[in-house]
Amino acid sequence: MIKVGIVGGTGYTGVELLRILAVHPDAEVSCITSRSEAGLAVAEMYPNLRGHYDLAFSEPDVAKLAACDLVFFATPHGVAMRMMPELMAAGVRVVDLSADFRLKDLDVWAQWYGMPHESPEWAEKAVYGLPEVAREAIRGAQLVANPGCYPTAVQLGFLPLLESDLVDSTRLIADAKSGASGAGRQGKIGMLHGEIGESFKAYGASGHRHLPEIRQGLQQASKLPVGVTFVPHLIPMIRGIEATLYAELTNAGDFERLQRVFENRFRNEPFVDVMPFGSHPETRSVRGANTCRMALHRQENSNIVIVSSVIDNLVKGAAGQAVQNMNIMFDLPETRGLEAPALLP
Amino acid sequence: MIKVGIVGGTGYTGVELLRILAVHPDAEVSCITSRSEAGLAVAEMYPNLRGHYDLAFSEPDVAKLAACDLVFFATPHGVAMRMMPELMAAGVRVVDLSADFRLKDLDVWAQWYGMPHESPEWAEKAVYGLPEVAREAIRGAQLVANPGCYPTAVQLGFLPLLESDLVDSTRLIADAKSGASGAGRQGKIGMLHGEIGESFKAYGASGHRHLPEIRQGLQQASKLPVGVTFVPHLIPMIRGIEATLYAELTNAGDFERLQRVFENRFRNEPFVDVMPFGSHPETRSVRGANTCRMALHRQENSNIVIVSSVIDNLVKGAAGQAVQNMNIMFDLPETRGLEAPALLP
Amino acid sequence: MIKVGIVGGTGYTGVELLRILAVHPDAEVSCITSRSEAGLAVAEMYPNLRGHYDLAFSEPDVAKLAACDLVFFATPHGVAMRMMPELMAAGVRVVDLSADFRLKDLDVWAQWYGMPHESPEWAEKAVYGLPEVAREAIRGAQLVANPGCYPTAVQLGFLPLLESDLVDSTRLIADAKSGASGAGRQGKIGMLHGEIGESFKAYGASGHRHLPEIRQGLQQASKLPVGVTFVPHLIPMIRGIEATLYAELTNAGDFERLQRVFENRFRNEPFVDVMPFGSHPETRSVRGANTCRMALHRQENSNIVIVSSVIDNLVKGAAGQAVQNMNIMFDLPETRGLEAPALLP
Amino acid sequence: MIKVGIVGGTGYTGVELLRILAVHPDAEVSCITSRSEAGLAVAEMYPNLRGHYDLAFSEPDVAKLAACDLVFFATPHGVAMRMMPELMAAGVRVVDLSADFRLKDLDVWAQWYGMPHESPEWAEKAVYGLPEVAREAIRGAQLVANPGCYPTAVQLGFLPLLESDLVDSTRLIADAKSGASGAGRQGKIGMLHGEIGESFKAYGASGHRHLPEIRQGLQQASKLPVGVTFVPHLIPMIRGIEATLYAELTNAGDFERLQRVFENRFRNEPFVDVMPFGSHPETRSVRGANTCRMALHRQENSNIVIVSSVIDNLVKGAAGQAVQNMNIMFDLPETRGLEAPALLP
Repeated sequence: MIKVGIVGGTGYTGVELLRILAVHPDAEVSCITSRSEAGLAVAEMYPNLRGHYDLAFSEPDVAKLAACDLVFFATPHGVAMRMMPELMAAGVRVVDLSADFRLKDLDVWAQWYGMPHESPEWAEKAVYGLPEVAREAIRGAQLVANPGCYPTAVQLGFLPLLESDLVDSTRLIADAKSGASGAGRQGKIGMLHGEIGESFKAYGASGHRHLPEIRQGLQQASKLPVGVTFVPHLIPMIRGIEATLYAELTNAGDFERLQRVFENRFRNEPFVDVMPFGSHPETRSVRGANTCRMALHRQENSNIVIVSSVIDNLVKGAAGQAVQNMNIMFDLPETRGLEAPALLP
Repeated sequence: MIKVGIVGGTGYTGVELLRILAVHPDAEVSCITSRSEAGLAVAEMYPNLRGHYDLAFSEPDVAKLAACDLVFFATPHGVAMRMMPELMAAGVRVVDLSADFRLKDLDVWAQWYGMPHESPEWAEKAVYGLPEVAREAIRGAQLVANPGCYPTAVQLGFLPLLESDLVDSTRLIADAKSGASGAGRQGKIGMLHGEIGESFKAYGASGHRHLPEIRQGLQQASKLPVGVTFVPHLIPMIRGIEATLYAELTNAGDFERLQRVFENRFRNEPFVDVMPFGSHPETRSVRGANTCRMALHRQENSNIVIVSSVIDNLVKGAAGQAVQNMNIMFDLPETRGLEAPALLP
Repeated sequence: MIKVGIVGGTGYTGVELLRILAVHPDAEVSCITSRSEAGLAVAEMYPNLRGHYDLAFSEPDVAKLAACDLVFFATPHGVAMRMMPELMAAGVRVVDLSADFRLKDLDVWAQWYGMPHESPEWAEKAVYGLPEVAREAIRGAQLVANPGCYPTAVQLGFLPLLESDLVDSTRLIADAKSGASGAGRQGKIGMLHGEIGESFKAYGASGHRHLPEIRQGLQQASKLPVGVTFVPHLIPMIRGIEATLYAELTNAGDFERLQRVFENRFRNEPFVDVMPFGSHPETRSVRGANTCRMALHRQENSNIVIVSSVIDNLVKGAAGQAVQNMNIMFDLPETRGLEAPALLP
Repeated sequence: MIKVGIVGGTGYTGVELLRILAVHPDAEVSCITSRSEAGLAVAEMYPNLRGHYDLAFSEPDVAKLAACDLVFFATPHGVAMRMMPELMAAGVRVVDLSADFRLKDLDVWAQWYGMPHESPEWAEKAVYGLPEVAREAIRGAQLVANPGCYPTAVQLGFLPLLESDLVDSTRLIADAKSGASGAGRQGKIGMLHGEIGESFKAYGASGHRHLPEIRQGLQQASKLPVGVTFVPHLIPMIRGIEATLYAELTNAGDFERLQRVFENRFRNEPFVDVMPFGSHPETRSVRGANTCRMALHRQENSNIVIVSSVIDNLVKGAAGQAVQNMNIMFDLPETRGLEAPALLP
């Protein structure tokens, strides 16, 4: 039984970890911290957990966390990097769901997150936890940087194209859309139901923090330099990301084998589902599930490949992928605790 | 391993049964019928089931169903009653999620469902499957009539009051609200997103089919004659029922012990959760879960008891309760396959 | 041309006043105040007003307001009562959309609003601005207390019953539901889209500030003592209130003439629409319009009258009714500026 | 007073025409036809119109339509083209909101709409009614083909770039998203609230009927050959389209003057609003209004121009633009009847 600690469990990522771990047969949450809510029962904040947890939020305490086998960070950026050296020294393994250890170039990190990075040593050692790319490194890692939600949906959709060198890597476009839970659980006017219900908009169109993370991941998969444009949008719903990806095939004749390339790439991946050519994945088909579902399209005789890729931003885009990483790190079957189908309708 | 058949699995109740049974360790769906979709893979109709089922819809076939240990009917009313005599004769056990066997007074049934009842023998023998009331009868039943969604939420909330004879049983009011999935998956203009999104209304306010079912259940719990007014409403969301119940305490002094009465009534019920006095249950706290969550309220010195009761109409109001009944019928732990917390947010 | 001032225009009630007044041929907004947003163009906060207003928010300034013909207060409670004596002395007329002057019993006011009332003189003189009840008093009033949203929907539906002494006035039940805009535009976690989307719940079930206002209004219409239970609920949508009202007919025979009683009561009311008996008013049918639409129901031989009453909480429940009151106060046609049909779908 | 006829008024476009015309001071609807609903009062089908129209749907009747000054077609494709020769011969003027007369290449039309075109003469004479491009031709036209919803949002956003020859016209990408009302008011399972609520997906990604219309319009604006990829998506809301457009600047230095190019292009357009560089237009900011609102973005040093363009698909994307066209055709001020601000929130 893996003894799990969660730092910063009051947000949507935190409650999602608790939801998934509640039925995980090999893991048990032994402590969950929140500075602001210390003393409050988690089931009082999240009534769906009534009857599932007796646990209360506690003050962050390195000693207590150090006694865990695995600690998840579900904190805003800037928190994990400060606690990491001490925890690493204590030998704990960590999956950090925040952005602190996702970027290798710390100048870029500092520029996008507005503060200098305080743990360069662990930024270098951290393994970027996209299992479809780095499964073996994850297995041996002490610190896994869990990918962002958009980067997960976008990278998985572009990877087969870049790895096989099929497209013009300098002209990638990712038009992505997310439900409101991606913005977290903070009292911002802009995220009120009255503000975002029955409306749709782009945001961060001039530059979003997930852009450098996407670029880093795509560059790693590509022999040639990558140029990518990424525009996120806000959907008036709670869970789900859809990313429509556009890339220009170098050789239009490659369209014929494209479906096979994708299917082969993900044949052994338990959480990536390539639908038949011309399908339209719906975000609801992955609601609550750790699946990335995608499909390919071509318009008339165009040489533009269109990929539509969907995930649940809180699951494959956050807590589910974190548990998948935990399973890998502890040599459990990768799907353990993540078997249930999505909630549809 | 219980061999399960499903008749009429193309609706929301059908896909919900499939979702729940996909991870039930002691049951396996061996056939699912649909006249209109015979031949279609269930995962093609419901992409959330891709990778979970190889099954395709087949033509209804009594012989094949008779080879099952348990058959769920997820059909419109009028179907189950016609097939029941033959299936019962074959010795199969059945949980009928349709309305065919819920009412004992077949004149009332005929009046509300617009056709004569064709299986009076089994209407009499059928056990009304509200486990919190009829657990022992369910255990031995060959045919269980799975309760309607509104009747589940309304009965559970009123039961402690009527069983303890605390209220004026002639003045019960149930103001209930449901998400759109309760209307099923049929191409009706009135259920389009464009028609019901961003809007709210009562419907069936002059009389709804669940009224006689509610009245029958409440009358059974009450020594005195029951008079109940029931108004359903349509919420612009997919899953969830909230019922606000109003009853007049015979003795206002009883307010002090009311919370205890409710807690005692449901102390051993795995799927009924009485929250602290004055709480407000949210439908999302039971989304995807088999729980009925409720709380009590009093306004100033009023002698009106207010009960707010929530369920997921597709789970405790349909497929989840059906699986709970199956667990009881097959002497499994009642919570088997129904342990996962609700999906929140 | 009526010179209009608006105090506290950054909330939903403020933007709604601006939207309506933008096309009102006889009124012009000459100043709008907001302490927090002084200097900001209103069209920058509310992009739907781009091209309609050049105005910017300014610091509250009694002299400037005193130069207006009419001032609307769209402030949280506690603000208007402090500024009122000075404004009244200056001879300005005011429609207060806040709760400050709605209750006549200031002890009750203090109890529900958590502070002593600071302008008892004007609380006494203020006219409660429900035009269907107090049209003549409104015409001559210097200070009009614009009714709350729930109280508007609930009172209009109960009035014909109480005024005609047809029901047991001690057993009134109002089960009301509102969209999220009723909670205003403040950064509360509980009003995030992620918290209230796809969910439904009661709130304030043990007592809500609109209860005493409803009781006061109903009592005024009734010869006999009034007892009313009022439970509000939160609908996952933005605009709209539906109130389902339950009352016990003293004489069940009166059901036959009930529809006529309602139609006669509102025959000359431009903003109350009584639908045919047995109809189901939808909130979308009044979205953006100043209409209260209602219908009557009876279940079988019950003596319970059911009234379903809908309004747009921001229009007939706030800004629209305020403009209706302005029209009355300035002897304009009552419908001026309020003629457009609701936005459906 | 313009005497208006509407053919096929039972859909969302029809009710929207009625809503707008209800307050148009210079037009009056004198007949509205519907084969299926003949005899039904329009206010019975659309309760928001109660009190605004006495009109009932009538059988289509050319003589009656010929007596109108202007006829709007709000029919599925294939209807208008059959009635057009007779109506044109009668001298009536027509604004056709269907797709029948939008494409000049009738082979392309036949390919996308699955039937041969039956009125080639009028297909040639019809004026494509995008006022920002063809105002003068519209003024004198007898038959105006009202643009599709997506084509309106997409063309307006691309026009300044193509007209000024600033971008690579062969690499245009339009990622567009629409609310559900765009699919019309028909009882399709795929448009149920239960199917599309809380979900997001692309559709028609391999080819959508609006693609050739978009291509035709863009080609007309461009000296060089146009290549455009267009992917529509379904948003879980009712009204609104957002199109995010991507184009590659030929000369990255042109970014500096881009905002000015857009502002100049639309300076005199009453219904196009160019927001400050870097803004994010929301669909709610145009809900119910005839405005197209757009903004420009650039990511770091990229040479990709990003345009986000929003409209209300039922207004500027259909009925509002049709009334704008009517105003032009009858020499009225172009904004007549279209002055009200959008409904926000």
